[in-house]
Amino acid sequence: MSPAKTTGSRSYRAAGVDRGAAARAKAMIKELARPTFGPHVLSEIGLFGGFFELPSGYRQPVLVSSVDGVGTKLKVAAALDQHGTIGHDLVNHCVNDIFTSGARPLFFLDYIAAGTLRPEHVAAVVKGLAEACQAVGCALIGGETAEMPGLYQADDYDLAGTIVGIIEKDQLIRGQGIQAGDVLLGVPSNGLHTNGYSLARKVFRIGVTPPSAWNAHYQELGCRLGEALLVPHRCYYPLLVPALPLIRGMAHITGGGLIENTPRILPQGLRAQFRRGSWPVLPIFQLIQREGGVSDEEMHHVFNMGLGMVLVVAPERVDEVRRLLPEALLVGEVVAGEGEPSAVVV
Amino acid sequence: MSPAKTTGSRSYRAAGVDRGAAARAKAMIKELARPTFGPHVLSEIGLFGGFFELPSGYRQPVLVSSVDGVGTKLKVAAALDQHGTIGHDLVNHCVNDIFTSGARPLFFLDYIAAGTLRPEHVAAVVKGLAEACQAVGCALIGGETAEMPGLYQADDYDLAGTIVGIIEKDQLIRGQGIQAGDVLLGVPSNGLHTNGYSLARKVFRIGVTPPSAWNAHYQELGCRLGEALLVPHRCYYPLLVPALPLIRGMAHITGGGLIENTPRILPQGLRAQFRRGSWPVLPIFQLIQREGGVSDEEMHHVFNMGLGMVLVVAPERVDEVRRLLPEALLVGEVVAGEGEPSAVVV
Repeated sequence: MSPAKTTGSRSYRAAGVDRGAAARAKAMIKELARPTFGPHVLSEIGLFGGFFELPSGYRQPVLVSSVDGVGTKLKVAAALDQHGTIGHDLVNHCVNDIFTSGARPLFFLDYIAAGTLRPEHVAAVVKGLAEACQAVGCALIGGETAEMPGLYQADDYDLAGTIVGIIEKDQLIRGQGIQAGDVLLGVPSNGLHTNGYSLARKVFRIGVTPPSAWNAHYQELGCRLGEALLVPHRCYYPLLVPALPLIRGMAHITGGGLIENTPRILPQGLRAQFRRGSWPVLPIFQLIQREGGVSDEEMHHVFNMGLGMVLVVAPERVDEVRRLLPEALLVGEVVAGEGEPSAVVV
Repeated sequence: MSPAKTTGSRSYRAAGVDRGAAARAKAMIKELARPTFGPHVLSEIGLFGGFFELPSGYRQPVLVSSVDGVGTKLKVAAALDQHGTIGHDLVNHCVNDIFTSGARPLFFLDYIAAGTLRPEHVAAVVKGLAEACQAVGCALIGGETAEMPGLYQADDYDLAGTIVGIIEKDQLIRGQGIQAGDVLLGVPSNGLHTNGYSLARKVFRIGVTPPSAWNAHYQELGCRLGEALLVPHRCYYPLLVPALPLIRGMAHITGGGLIENTPRILPQGLRAQFRRGSWPVLPIFQLIQREGGVSDEEMHHVFNMGLGMVLVVAPERVDEVRRLLPEALLVGEVVAGEGEPSAVVV
C-alpha cells in the first residue's frame, strides 16, 4: 500500500478531511509541546497515550482533574484573527479550577476541533497552551486535533482541555472546615476571564458586524474593546501557593459569577455574603452593563465582576494571609443560612 | 442578589445561553455518573475538580492518558436522532487507546458543547458514557457541558473525552521488544468504530438528504445502513487483558487505518506487512467502497477494514495467545524495513 493518494472519485480529501494538514499540525504540536516535558514524561506526542510517571514521595496521592473549554471567547479571537492567547485562557482556567482544592498541576491534554484545520491557527493556539503549561510546570502531554467538516463552519474551531493535578490526601482543601464568621477575601480578576462572552458578543454585535464597527478605543478601558475582551484568564496558582496552608476554601469565579460559584465550596447551612462596593468592578463590566442595558442581577450571575478567586479564611488568619497576598481584598463574610449553601451580594 | 432573572433588555438567555437548561443537565449528569464511582472517587460531580485517590500497591505507577472525540459519527447519530451509543463509542475508543500500553482505566472526563443544550440529548449521551465506563470499572469523574451559540448550529453538538489509566512502570508496553519475524495478530472490529465518517457521509449523502433517502436495508449488511454505521466502537480491554503478558506491542486501528496506526508502535527500521485476504473485510466497507468508487488504497488509509486491534507477538508465543484469544487472526508479520517504521498491505 503506497502513501495516500486521493485518486478515487470519492476520497477523504474530497470529503473535507485533509490528512496532510493533520500530519503537519501534529509535527508542529510535537515541537511545541516538548519544552513542557519534565523528567516525569516518558512518552512522545503521537503515541496512543501520554505516559506520566507519578512523582515519588506522596503517601496517599489524590489526583485532581478538570475539563473545560473557553466558550465563545473563541469567536472574539477569531473575529480579530488573534489566536495566541486562547491557549493561555484554557490552561489558566483549568489550573485555577484544580488549585481550588490545593492541587498542583501535573499534565494537560487539549482537544481542538475545526471545520477545516488551519495549521497556523492550531500552531498559535498550541503555542499558547505550551507557554501557559510551562509557566506552571505542567506537561502538555497529549491532544487531539480533529477535522470535522459539517459540524464546524470552515474557519471555526473549538478548544477544550483536561488537566490532572496531584495533592496529598490530608492536604486536600474541601471547604469542610468553613464556618459562619469566616472571612471572604477576593483576589482581583483582570477581565472576563473565559465567561460571559455570548452576552458580551451580543451587546457589541461581535461577529454580526465587522471589527471596524465595534473594536473602538474606549477612554475608560485605556485600550480597544477587542484588546480588553481578549486579556488572558489570570492564573492564580503561583500567587496563592504561599498562602495555601492558611486557606479553608477557594472558589474560582467562572460562569455563574460569585452567586453560583461560591456556594460550590460551602457546607450546608452557610451563605457567602459579599459587600457591594468592597472591590472595584472593572471598567469592562461597567461598559458591558451600560451598553447592553443589562440588569445588575444578571451581571453578577454571568460575570466575575472583578474578582477571579474568592478565599475563605478564618478571622484569626486574615492578617497573615493579607501580608502574603497584599492584593487580596476584604469582600465579605460567611453567615448562617438555611439549607442549601448560597451566596448573596448586599 | 436574588436568583437569576432575565429582565434586562440584554440577558444571557436572550444571548442564547440558558442557565436553567445547564443546571438541569448538570443534575441529570450527577445521577448518571454516580454508579460509576468506586471507592477511589472522593468527590461529587459539580465541584471544581474530580478527586481520585490513587489505588495503593503500585511501586512505580505511570499514568497513561488520552483525549479523543468521536468525529462526525455524531452527524450520523444526529440524523437518526439516536444519541444513546455515541457515549459508548467515545469511552471505548479512549479505553482501547490507553490499553495499547497495557494500562487499565481509572477515570474519564467528558466535554459536550452545543449550540443549544438539549437536556434529553445530553442525558442520552452521558448515560452511554456512564454505561461504558461502568463496564470497565472506570469512574466518570467530571465533565463540562457548554452552550456556545454561534459556534455550533442549534441542534449540533460535539463530544470529546479524556481518560486516565494506570500501569506499573516495568509493565508498560512500549513496543521496544518488537523485532523482525514477530507475528501480527488481528482482532476483528465490528464496524467503522469512530473513523472515516466524513467519507462515509459523503458517499451516502448523509445529512444532505433525509434518512428516508439513504437509510435503506441492505441484504449484505443484514440491517439498515444507519444501524450498521452506528454500531458502537468495540472495547478490547476485557478481551485482551488475559493475553497481556504475552504481547510485545498493540496498535489500535483508528483514523489512518492499518497503514498509519501500526507504525506508531514499531521501532525504527521495521515494517508491518499485512497479508490481504487474511482477514474478512466487513460488508460495510465493501459497500462504502463500491457505492463511493473509493480506491483500495484510500480505503486502507481511512478505515480499519475489519481489524480493530493489531497485536505484535513473538513467534513462539503465537499459539498460546491464540488459545487465549480464539478470534485473533494471523494477518501478517514484522519485517526489516528502512528508516522510519512503516506498514504495508500486500
